[in-house]
Amino acid sequence: MESAADRSRILDPSLHPEGSLAIAWARRHSPVLTGLVASTFEDGSLEGVRVAVVVHLEAKTALLASVLADAGAEVVVAGSNPHSTRDEIAAALVERGIEVHATRGSDYGTWEKDLLAVADREPMYIVDDGAELTIRIARQRPDLYRRLRGVSEETTTGVERLRRLEAEGNLPFPAMAANDAACKHLFDNRYGTGQSTVQAVLQLTNFVMAGKEVAVVGYGWVGRGIATYVRAMGGRVSVIEVDPVKGLEALMEGHEVGSAASVLPTADIVITATGGMRAIGMRDFPHLKPNVVLANAGHHDLEIDVAALEEQAGAPRQVRPGVDRYEWNGKPINVLSKGALVNIAGGLGHPIEIMDLSFSVQGLSLHELVVNDLDPGVHILPKPLDDAIARARLEAEGVHLDSLSSEQVDDMGDWIGGR
Amino acid sequence: MESAADRSRILDPSLHPEGSLAIAWARRHSPVLTGLVASTFEDGSLEGVRVAVVVHLEAKTALLASVLADAGAEVVVAGSNPHSTRDEIAAALVERGIEVHATRGSDYGTWEKDLLAVADREPMYIVDDGAELTIRIARQRPDLYRRLRGVSEETTTGVERLRRLEAEGNLPFPAMAANDAACKHLFDNRYGTGQSTVQAVLQLTNFVMAGKEVAVVGYGWVGRGIATYVRAMGGRVSVIEVDPVKGLEALMEGHEVGSAASVLPTADIVITATGGMRAIGMRDFPHLKPNVVLANAGHHDLEIDVAALEEQAGAPRQVRPGVDRYEWNGKPINVLSKGALVNIAGGLGHPIEIMDLSFSVQGLSLHELVVNDLDPGVHILPKPLDDAIARARLEAEGVHLDSLSSEQVDDMGDWIGGR
Amino acid sequence: MESAADRSRILDPSLHPEGSLAIAWARRHSPVLTGLVASTFEDGSLEGVRVAVVVHLEAKTALLASVLADAGAEVVVAGSNPHSTRDEIAAALVERGIEVHATRGSDYGTWEKDLLAVADREPMYIVDDGAELTIRIARQRPDLYRRLRGVSEETTTGVERLRRLEAEGNLPFPAMAANDAACKHLFDNRYGTGQSTVQAVLQLTNFVMAGKEVAVVGYGWVGRGIATYVRAMGGRVSVIEVDPVKGLEALMEGHEVGSAASVLPTADIVITATGGMRAIGMRDFPHLKPNVVLANAGHHDLEIDVAALEEQAGAPRQVRPGVDRYEWNGKPINVLSKGALVNIAGGLGHPIEIMDLSFSVQGLSLHELVVNDLDPGVHILPKPLDDAIARARLEAEGVHLDSLSSEQVDDMGDWIGGR
Amino acid sequence: MESAADRSRILDPSLHPEGSLAIAWARRHSPVLTGLVASTFEDGSLEGVRVAVVVHLEAKTALLASVLADAGAEVVVAGSNPHSTRDEIAAALVERGIEVHATRGSDYGTWEKDLLAVADREPMYIVDDGAELTIRIARQRPDLYRRLRGVSEETTTGVERLRRLEAEGNLPFPAMAANDAACKHLFDNRYGTGQSTVQAVLQLTNFVMAGKEVAVVGYGWVGRGIATYVRAMGGRVSVIEVDPVKGLEALMEGHEVGSAASVLPTADIVITATGGMRAIGMRDFPHLKPNVVLANAGHHDLEIDVAALEEQAGAPRQVRPGVDRYEWNGKPINVLSKGALVNIAGGLGHPIEIMDLSFSVQGLSLHELVVNDLDPGVHILPKPLDDAIARARLEAEGVHLDSLSSEQVDDMGDWIGGR
Repeated sequence: MESAADRSRILDPSLHPEGSLAIAWARRHSPVLTGLVASTFEDGSLEGVRVAVVVHLEAKTALLASVLADAGAEVVVAGSNPHSTRDEIAAALVERGIEVHATRGSDYGTWEKDLLAVADREPMYIVDDGAELTIRIARQRPDLYRRLRGVSEETTTGVERLRRLEAEGNLPFPAMAANDAACKHLFDNRYGTGQSTVQAVLQLTNFVMAGKEVAVVGYGWVGRGIATYVRAMGGRVSVIEVDPVKGLEALMEGHEVGSAASVLPTADIVITATGGMRAIGMRDFPHLKPNVVLANAGHHDLEIDVAALEEQAGAPRQVRPGVDRYEWNGKPINVLSKGALVNIAGGLGHPIEIMDLSFSVQGLSLHELVVNDLDPGVHILPKPLDDAIARARLEAEGVHLDSLSSEQVDDMGDWIGGR
Repeated sequence: MESAADRSRILDPSLHPEGSLAIAWARRHSPVLTGLVASTFEDGSLEGVRVAVVVHLEAKTALLASVLADAGAEVVVAGSNPHSTRDEIAAALVERGIEVHATRGSDYGTWEKDLLAVADREPMYIVDDGAELTIRIARQRPDLYRRLRGVSEETTTGVERLRRLEAEGNLPFPAMAANDAACKHLFDNRYGTGQSTVQAVLQLTNFVMAGKEVAVVGYGWVGRGIATYVRAMGGRVSVIEVDPVKGLEALMEGHEVGSAASVLPTADIVITATGGMRAIGMRDFPHLKPNVVLANAGHHDLEIDVAALEEQAGAPRQVRPGVDRYEWNGKPINVLSKGALVNIAGGLGHPIEIMDLSFSVQGLSLHELVVNDLDPGVHILPKPLDDAIARARLEAEGVHLDSLSSEQVDDMGDWIGGR
Repeated sequence: MESAADRSRILDPSLHPEGSLAIAWARRHSPVLTGLVASTFEDGSLEGVRVAVVVHLEAKTALLASVLADAGAEVVVAGSNPHSTRDEIAAALVERGIEVHATRGSDYGTWEKDLLAVADREPMYIVDDGAELTIRIARQRPDLYRRLRGVSEETTTGVERLRRLEAEGNLPFPAMAANDAACKHLFDNRYGTGQSTVQAVLQLTNFVMAGKEVAVVGYGWVGRGIATYVRAMGGRVSVIEVDPVKGLEALMEGHEVGSAASVLPTADIVITATGGMRAIGMRDFPHLKPNVVLANAGHHDLEIDVAALEEQAGAPRQVRPGVDRYEWNGKPINVLSKGALVNIAGGLGHPIEIMDLSFSVQGLSLHELVVNDLDPGVHILPKPLDDAIARARLEAEGVHLDSLSSEQVDDMGDWIGGR
Repeated sequence: MESAADRSRILDPSLHPEGSLAIAWARRHSPVLTGLVASTFEDGSLEGVRVAVVVHLEAKTALLASVLADAGAEVVVAGSNPHSTRDEIAAALVERGIEVHATRGSDYGTWEKDLLAVADREPMYIVDDGAELTIRIARQRPDLYRRLRGVSEETTTGVERLRRLEAEGNLPFPAMAANDAACKHLFDNRYGTGQSTVQAVLQLTNFVMAGKEVAVVGYGWVGRGIATYVRAMGGRVSVIEVDPVKGLEALMEGHEVGSAASVLPTADIVITATGGMRAIGMRDFPHLKPNVVLANAGHHDLEIDVAALEEQAGAPRQVRPGVDRYEWNGKPINVLSKGALVNIAGGLGHPIEIMDLSFSVQGLSLHELVVNDLDPGVHILPKPLDDAIARARLEAEGVHLDSLSSEQVDDMGDWIGGR
């Protein structure tokens, strides 16, 4: 029989030692995934279950795949974005006997072929990111699509796509909105993206944050996480927002708030976090400060309109690893990581402890899909499971909580009813 | 005809000059209430409308009553809690021709009589706090209750009470959950209660916050607002929570988290913010540090079980204005403001700018009730009105926002749909 | 024999109960002064020693006077500024048998007569503030001046004055620069003035700090303390400085830095902290934002040129207790506490714990003067005594430090010498 | 004649392109060094002057060497520590015609030979770090030592060594304590070391800081810089100090303070910053938490007693690049960068803008030595030059300061003299 290694398409299997080290380090600092989640799987429910994992392929994702495989699942892996794939991690998974289809920096066509190769393994369940695999199966493998037993989705965008499918009457299986669990969205954006984005920007530039003026475009969860870290490290934040309530929140947090035209001319660094497209585009280039640094922390590569910049300014010059300098009408403009997600493409991605939470949500979401007979449609992880993850994390940190006395609980009801 | 002054029951009308000054100061710093809201009322919709206002009776509330009266409404006012009533403010309202039934520190029976006196003016609409007047009318004036045209409610607790009435099939009129508007709940708890609670504790004690350990009991919106200000001013925060997700959030914000038994023995100050009862009670007294200061920032006076403390320790000694010291088994325990809301009973209440937002929500909520034919049940302020308030505040601060280009809006839809 | 009460000149002895409560509260939260310092005095060295205490006459100062009297000293007290004197505190001291010459709000002539009345008690030692009593004795009681055995001075300004006397060859006794001790100047400005100034401004105005722009004029120890607290509470700080190194430090702390003309037009609150005169004066009035609030946290009442403002704008209107509004060319300008030190005249002064440190320095400084035969000139508290105060404070907080092992100490010397 | 390339000893000249890019990036973000300093050198004073530069050999140091060479100096370079040398930077300097003696990771003997090779070029002036070259010349090249015209020294340690030589009567030339200039020591430790240390720890571990407990050993300038950044990013700081005043400062900043035995058992990360030796050593290993991460930010490699750890635990296993894991009695202990300065050996060193300040001090210090006939001994950069650097930096950031009016200056003198 053909081995996982034979079926895989990766760059170089010999890269595995470095990858294995990184996975081992992640394992040691992921107490919930290797504790609560792994022991939940001891019921044998994953034995022989075929699971596709299509998430940014780096050490923490590999750990999730390993935990699933340890529980008896047949796991096949691709990366959700070719720019975030780590070849040594792919090699380590193959070394461990898991099938992988991914290489760093592959072109769009190759990447899509990898996804379809995963589909051709006929997974019963998908752990997806951006619904990238789910959407392709819906369009290009309709038979398989009808046979899917469940999808667990990592991101806001992917959940929106699944809800759209549901609204169109085209979601014939249950899907877990892992993203919407408290242990996912309350932590990864604020702390994970916040820290890792600022860390990546500083690492790529060797700048000091103290004294810098940083424009944050978009003040959702991601934007406010970034703003918090910038301010904490001595930067001044100016926020560009279109929503007045969010703008007022930004003001009350001590940030400056204004239009792009008023904010950009003095900003040393500009970070996009809108979830939309062209957050910084042609109408903004004239306002940018010379030598400005542009970075993207939003959902996809199009928040900074790099294509328009290149069209107007010509090809850039790489002035540092991960830093391209354009000369726009004689004004130097630096773009980090070609406008891709700077914390993943130009950094280490989310910290391990954050992914321990997110992937524990994924693990228990998958378990829910496998052991329960859920109706088709988008589901949320039940609060007791969400709570169990938080409690496991707290206990790993040595924190034990009180519980309400029955007296306290009863009184509350009475009181709400009026004395 | 009997004048408003004749009908009012207040302490001393001659106190009005000081009260009028305070209201004038609030007016000058309430650009949204005196701008957007007042001009909305210029449509004449409030002419001759009878409105009861039952909210903590201090300067900002008086300003709301005045703005309503300026718009032609017949306003009658009582306080939502006798300990927060300011007699000079009551006098200033009467001086201006508004009927008031309230005196500071009146006993429960007197206070309730004041509420019923307001009911007897047969209001068509109520601006309520904790649904205190609404509930009494429901029970004691059932005929009037059926004739009520609408209620706008200020607090979480009041909204819960209204929803309970609705669930019981006993809410025959539309009610606006003013509390649930973004311009209310996103700002008043975090910034308003956070700042004013810390400010009141420091003012009552003359303590420095730097170096103090402060236990915050309950990590909801109020608790985290307080924790943020304590930490910002150099205190160390330890959080007591029963909900693991909230506990984990507290940990990630840099606070210590633990059980009451582990946290209380080193806490210099303990602040309750649970919304429940007996957050600090008999089982906790043995753990408290000698000379600890207890303060309550939660919904009502029972979060600190002062009755149990007095039963065990005997009557306290007032050791400073607003500070009672109990001797519990020889251990001194200081209670601020007798366990009442420390920021209102022991301080200035919410800052003016916060109430400008909250009462602008109340103003537009009332306007919605008056001009629209809403169904019975609990309603939310429409987002465009919420946005208008935020925008008006931003503009008063000199901030003007961008709007999305149509290109940006269109793209987003396409992209969500998948490329 | 005439009693202390007979010799005193205060407003009303019957005010003593409230004052006694406040002193008792301060005593309970001053572990160093009532511990280390009081036990140092148990050597009897203060028995019968005549000491003048001329410091802002409020509860903590009264505690210092009491501790000295408890140790057997003959204490006589005046206030260092008539606007900060608390009449109930003066009454409590007299009740306790200490002679006092002070009334709140007395005019300059009366205040100076009080100082001279203290001089006429022929003190051997002075605990002085701003060297106010020392300078007057030097000029108006030259015989007594030559007989003085020592002065311990509280403030930067007073130390400068004493050094000037020393430089002129006119300091015939030893003086302790209490201000220069670490336990004084490292804590009172940053934490004490920082917190109490912000607290007083918020208390006088009922403003929220979140979202405010606050101009801090002068970025010395006081200014940076204020800036830290403003930023911590959600304000944006802009700093006006003339010293480029201080300006750069402010920038690196995340503040905006600029000239008065660039900063003032958008500042909601302006706080002076320069130690100089006319930090905000005629050339600045045109730049101020309408409805701005001006407060002074600097050494004396002339940092805001209130006289020039009144000359140009006419007499102000009191719009709130402690808030005067001027109309300057139609622009409203609010001045807090008439330009006097806002944290003392408009607030509670420094927090108790800060004064416990400062007055412990004073206590040990006085003890040094009494038990040692120091040469004339300005002296600094020996570091072991400074350390002892810090250690006592830490131990009161339950903190115990390590000490260096001899191995660690020895190595360091070797290593500095080069390997 | 032999070229600079011929005389140099570096790893590989062909590495120059990457090094040149890094230097160009540093140049673009060093406005003071390339502005004020370079234009000061336009007086020709450096023409033909032989200068040795012995500082951590990375991009910013190379920029300093280039600016000196651009001014006509004959520059010869070695690294102050073999672990911080970047071979591609060395190659870029040689490519530009500057003589270099340095390779990364060379052993002690080789490194010292490189220093002596620099000495053999008979420099007239030295820009030194830790006085490493100066001390060696003093001992091993006494004739040259007597002919030296001046030394400008970068670090606290080096200045201490020079003062010791001066005290021993063995400093026959003027030395500038560049370290003591405001534009050096007020910025590099607090902001430079603070940020870069935290950044390096996070980069080496992929940890999140939020929720971590971090013990900081030593609360001098470096320690408090680190503590500030840890707390700002959501960590809880516990400080180990032996000095009570510093301990009290740490407490007032909101940190926990305690002995090693009380603090270490719960610390996730331990960072040393004492300037001494064996800050974490044998007596501490039993207290460490399993899986703890140890990092050093102090002056030299001996703050963590790695030798003792290896002796007791055996050789470590590298578990990630820059992370060694020891098993001490079965307890895993992770050491970053082998105990070397983590921000340099494991990170990018100080941010560019910080080094722009530090090396501008070095540049003007060297200029002072060259153009003035200073007496032998340790000197400080005159304040006007220090101010000029700060002002140039502010102006590069677009900030322009006010100056005091003569009226303000005059008044201050009068007032200090007493009214």
